[in-house]
Amino acid sequence: MATGRRRTCVIIGGGFGGLSAAKRLRNSDVDVILIDKTNHYLFQPLLYQVATAALSPGDVAQPLRSILRHSTNIHVLMQTVLHIDTSERLIVHDGGVISYDHLILAPGARHSYFGHPEWEAAAPGLKDLNDALLIRERLLSTFERAERERDLTARRRALTFVVIGAGPTGVELAGAIAEISSKTMLPDFPALKREDVRVLLVDAAPRVLTAFDEGLSAKALASLRDLGVDVQLSTPVTDVRMDGVQIGADFIHSTNVIWAAGNQASPLLHDLDVPLDKQGRVFVNDDCTIPGHDDVFVIGDAANHRDLPGVAQVAMQQGTYVATIIKNNVSATSRKPFRYRDLGSMATIGRARAVAHVFGLSFSGFLAWALWAVIHIASLIGFRNRFKVMIEWLWFYVSFQPGARLIVQRDTVTNERPSEQQV
Amino acid sequence: MATGRRRTCVIIGGGFGGLSAAKRLRNSDVDVILIDKTNHYLFQPLLYQVATAALSPGDVAQPLRSILRHSTNIHVLMQTVLHIDTSERLIVHDGGVISYDHLILAPGARHSYFGHPEWEAAAPGLKDLNDALLIRERLLSTFERAERERDLTARRRALTFVVIGAGPTGVELAGAIAEISSKTMLPDFPALKREDVRVLLVDAAPRVLTAFDEGLSAKALASLRDLGVDVQLSTPVTDVRMDGVQIGADFIHSTNVIWAAGNQASPLLHDLDVPLDKQGRVFVNDDCTIPGHDDVFVIGDAANHRDLPGVAQVAMQQGTYVATIIKNNVSATSRKPFRYRDLGSMATIGRARAVAHVFGLSFSGFLAWALWAVIHIASLIGFRNRFKVMIEWLWFYVSFQPGARLIVQRDTVTNERPSEQQV
Repeated sequence: MATGRRRTCVIIGGGFGGLSAAKRLRNSDVDVILIDKTNHYLFQPLLYQVATAALSPGDVAQPLRSILRHSTNIHVLMQTVLHIDTSERLIVHDGGVISYDHLILAPGARHSYFGHPEWEAAAPGLKDLNDALLIRERLLSTFERAERERDLTARRRALTFVVIGAGPTGVELAGAIAEISSKTMLPDFPALKREDVRVLLVDAAPRVLTAFDEGLSAKALASLRDLGVDVQLSTPVTDVRMDGVQIGADFIHSTNVIWAAGNQASPLLHDLDVPLDKQGRVFVNDDCTIPGHDDVFVIGDAANHRDLPGVAQVAMQQGTYVATIIKNNVSATSRKPFRYRDLGSMATIGRARAVAHVFGLSFSGFLAWALWAVIHIASLIGFRNRFKVMIEWLWFYVSFQPGARLIVQRDTVTNERPSEQQV
Repeated sequence: MATGRRRTCVIIGGGFGGLSAAKRLRNSDVDVILIDKTNHYLFQPLLYQVATAALSPGDVAQPLRSILRHSTNIHVLMQTVLHIDTSERLIVHDGGVISYDHLILAPGARHSYFGHPEWEAAAPGLKDLNDALLIRERLLSTFERAERERDLTARRRALTFVVIGAGPTGVELAGAIAEISSKTMLPDFPALKREDVRVLLVDAAPRVLTAFDEGLSAKALASLRDLGVDVQLSTPVTDVRMDGVQIGADFIHSTNVIWAAGNQASPLLHDLDVPLDKQGRVFVNDDCTIPGHDDVFVIGDAANHRDLPGVAQVAMQQGTYVATIIKNNVSATSRKPFRYRDLGSMATIGRARAVAHVFGLSFSGFLAWALWAVIHIASLIGFRNRFKVMIEWLWFYVSFQPGARLIVQRDTVTNERPSEQQV
């Protein structure tokens, strides 16, 4: 480690992990360069609400520069990292080369289609704002298409929504789609009847939300069925096509398939030349470093740290942990191992329903939802977003009129171009 | 006119004119079919705030179906009209054919590039949400690009914004861009200095806001210059290229050119086979009908009614006027001519500055702005949007932190793909 001069820490990725690290390094004697391909931090836990038209992109995202604007030692770069050279301590991005003394890798993950990348076109996943807007687009256009469809079979196929994967994202998406379909959309479409809409939630696992205990899984399942979601468990998906999905023996016709199943860590990790797990994550040491490099830290969805779950809490705690090591320049030998403090987990199922396991207690129903709402609003960055999301939720709670039901982009599934000027 | 059965009125276009007509026909004994290519009504006067990241699309737009959901005699169709046959009283759209007893044409206008359609790629206009998001995209990406640009000349070219056309839209855009550049963006970009940013407002006319009296024009000009806008009048634009614009003798290097100059009415009007003016608008009769067809009404930006200005007020009053004729089935001979009640006009220039001419009085400065804000919030449809926009404005007023600074789409000018997942 060079001494006498200021050290440089490069952080790749401005998600939960990378941003926590950057914040911990604020106004320290380390020069920090935060590189992200987008210009904003995204609060992913609420992304499904953008996909279901409840929130606007601006409500769940904020420019990284604004978040870090008062930290003179932190520089934000909107660039794409192309290559990492750990032996030369160099980062090559599409705008140049940077050398580092410490590297924090928090590039996150994309969806994994279990070796079927061709499925992505038909079954988009939900990771960034673009994904969310595409899904919103398809969801809303579908009702327009169904409204003018005279043939009942075709109409019902158009109104069949399939969510693959019954983890938190899948459960929250399926619940929200079922809810806005019956409460918000149907009243606007005179030709459509409730029985025309079908929301399917499919998973190969025997229960939903496997990360939760069986009691909460059962409660979540009950809530989903209450909302009219057709939950099919222990049912692997064997094929996804533009016109539907093969589930066990049945082929379900649908042009609204959403992928919430698997994750694959960033391909950039291959540059590290260290062993990766099935999901492409790095097996990290107790101090979140990679084998052979005590100056390279990998955190969040990119790291496999004793199989900790891929949740925001882990990424944030790892970010703070590694940033503290770097801030205090702690030598490899004297670092205490990272310890995860599980603050609990929660998932929401439609309006005023949720399951939560916090402080060692299990909740469900309205209380869990209220807790979920409070914690998520509190976790948003910035007064403005907290306030706006709160308003949106209150408004939706009383009116069932979500705020962002706009078709503004081109729908890639149908060939409609709703966004163009009328005639 | 068929009697004994219910009459059908087809409205093409769900803007100010078309929606006013539809509302007037609510719960009447006329069946109304409202056709629009998009699914939403757009409050265009605030569109420039979406383009400048102050508001989210959801704040200025609302689904047509929701607005009209309680009117059982009104059906909304999201379709593109392809052809109008006034002799057979038929409308051909991309989903089928409809016959009408009364037709209200309110298809609006697009930009006109004065015979240079090739300019559009380099100088997008601002008519719909897509336009606004594209402009926002370029605006925000430009600062990111400039921040990493080492060459001063190149950086200053990147930060040169040119707005062509000094009508209300151009003035509002130029003012807003100058304001968020200095107040919002610069503090986030350490490498950029105030003198690197240049906002140019160009018009061939000798003054800005020619629709207003000279006193208000002068006040608007002073406010623009106060905000640092470089206003160049009596200067026709002779060429627009991807790398800049030719203005008189000078070529201004810029990849951020916005077109706010001319309008061209919908090409659909050619089907009517009646004389059109230079802007492609129909010369309508005193009752807003077209020559030879007392059942075909043309309103708003598509109509030339004694050279009334192309403003929302005219379109809305015409919509209500023709809808009343249709509702009461007034015969052509006994219709009173349309009379426009000018409620005044206003334009805003950045935060807390505006010019207004209302109730025969001219205002400027904060008072005009307050009036502008109140009237525009009141004109928004729905409590939710009114409330949200008010909050956004108050928030921006105190914090200078607009709510929607997100780069989520692909920038069509640069080859950046900011929307993709980090690495």
